[in-house]
Amino acid sequence: MIEQRIKELTGHDLPTAPKPLAAYIPAIQTGNLVMTAGQLPFKEGKLLSEGKVGYDVTEEKGIECAKQSAINCLSAIKTVIHDLDRIEKVVKLTVFVSSAIGFHSQPKIANGASELMVQIFGENGKHARSAVGVSELPMNAPVEIEMTVQVK
Amino acid sequence: MIEQRIKELTGHDLPTAPKPLAAYIPAIQTGNLVMTAGQLPFKEGKLLSEGKVGYDVTEEKGIECAKQSAINCLSAIKTVIHDLDRIEKVVKLTVFVSSAIGFHSQPKIANGASELMVQIFGENGKHARSAVGVSELPMNAPVEIEMTVQVK
Amino acid sequence: MIEQRIKELTGHDLPTAPKPLAAYIPAIQTGNLVMTAGQLPFKEGKLLSEGKVGYDVTEEKGIECAKQSAINCLSAIKTVIHDLDRIEKVVKLTVFVSSAIGFHSQPKIANGASELMVQIFGENGKHARSAVGVSELPMNAPVEIEMTVQVK
Repeated sequence: MIEQRIKELTGHDLPTAPKPLAAYIPAIQTGNLVMTAGQLPFKEGKLLSEGKVGYDVTEEKGIECAKQSAINCLSAIKTVIHDLDRIEKVVKLTVFVSSAIGFHSQPKIANGASELMVQIFGENGKHARSAVGVSELPMNAPVEIEMTVQVK
Repeated sequence: MIEQRIKELTGHDLPTAPKPLAAYIPAIQTGNLVMTAGQLPFKEGKLLSEGKVGYDVTEEKGIECAKQSAINCLSAIKTVIHDLDRIEKVVKLTVFVSSAIGFHSQPKIANGASELMVQIFGENGKHARSAVGVSELPMNAPVEIEMTVQVK
Repeated sequence: MIEQRIKELTGHDLPTAPKPLAAYIPAIQTGNLVMTAGQLPFKEGKLLSEGKVGYDVTEEKGIECAKQSAINCLSAIKTVIHDLDRIEKVVKLTVFVSSAIGFHSQPKIANGASELMVQIFGENGKHARSAVGVSELPMNAPVEIEMTVQVK
C-alpha cells in the first residue's frame, strides 16, 4: 500500500537499494527502530545533480535531490523490513545540504524530503528533522539524508 | 521543578516552542526516547546572532547561542512530554557550529549547552556529545543543536 | 576476546578513554544502545594528523585517522559496559571528514573505520553509516566519528 502510494506520488516504482558497499549496509534494525546509512540522490545509478546548492545546483534541483534521497532511504529500509507497510512512523531525518557560501535555505531544500514523507505516510510521516549546510558531500552530491523509522 | 530551575539559571521562563513548520515537528517520542529537530538560537522570535563563530560572531556570543539552542531543545521536548520533570536523563547532544575558516574551538562553544544541561539536571544531565564545524546553517544561525533525552 | 582481536588487528592494546571533559561523557547507555560522543583520532594524547583531507592530510593518513577514531569509540564504549564482548552488534557510524575544497571521497576515508569494525566483529560489525564532509573539526582534527552499538 505504501509502495503503491510512492508510485502514485513519484511516478516511479520504489527503486532497489544500492548494493552494500564494502563494510556497511544500507540500513539496520535495532529494537523497533530502523536507521539508514546516509543516502545520496541516485536515480537509476546516477546522481540527479552534482555540486553545491545555491551555486551550481538550483534550489529546485536541490529539492528534487532531497526527495530522491528520501526515496532511497525508503529503499534502504525495505532491505531490512521487506514491506514498507510495517513502518509505524517516521521518527527522524537528518538532511545534509552541500551549500554554496552564503546559502542559508537548507530548510527549504530539506522540506522536499519532509513533505514527501507526509504525503506518503500522512500523520505518521511527521518527524523531527535537522537541516545542516556542509562544505562537501560524497561524489559531489548536493544532498545526503539519513532516516530513522519506527516499525511494528 | 525543572522549569523552575531553568528560570533561576537563565532568568527567563521556558519559551514556547516554535510552531511546527511545514512537514516536520519540533520533537518526537520513540519508545522512551524523545529526539528534537535541530534547534536554532531563537529568542523571542529573533536569532541571538547571525554569522560564523570566529569571524562575525565572537566565542562569547557563540556560547550564548549554544545555551539558547539547548533551551529551545527543552521547549521542543516539552511539546511532547508536557512536563520536563519526566526527563530521566539527557542522552545526546549534537552541536553544529557555523565556523569561520580556521576556527577549531567548537567544543568550547558546545560546552555552553553541555554545562547548562548539567546545571539544570545535575548528574542526569551528563550526556554524550558531538561538536562539529559546518560551513553554513539555516538562516545564517551560528549554532544548531539536536538533543535526545530518555523519559520516564 | 574482542579486545584481544583489536590488539591483533592494530598492534596495540585498546587505549584508555580520554577523561570526561567538562560536562559531557565519552559514551552513554540508553536501553540496550550505547552511543559515543564524537571521537577524534587521538593516540597517546596526540592527534595522528591535523588539517583537511585532500589538502594537508593525505587519503592514507585520513584512513588511519578514521581507524583511530573508531578505536577510540570502542574505548569510550568500554567506559560504560566495561567488557567489549557485551557488544551484540555495531549499529551506526557517523563519520565527519574535515574536507579540502573539492574533496569528495569521504566514503573512502570512512571505510577505514567501517572495515575495521567488520574485521573486529565479523557479521555483527556491519552497520549503517553516514560519511559527510565538513569545513572544520575540533582541534583541527581530520576526522570525527560517533558510534552507536547494541549491547546484550
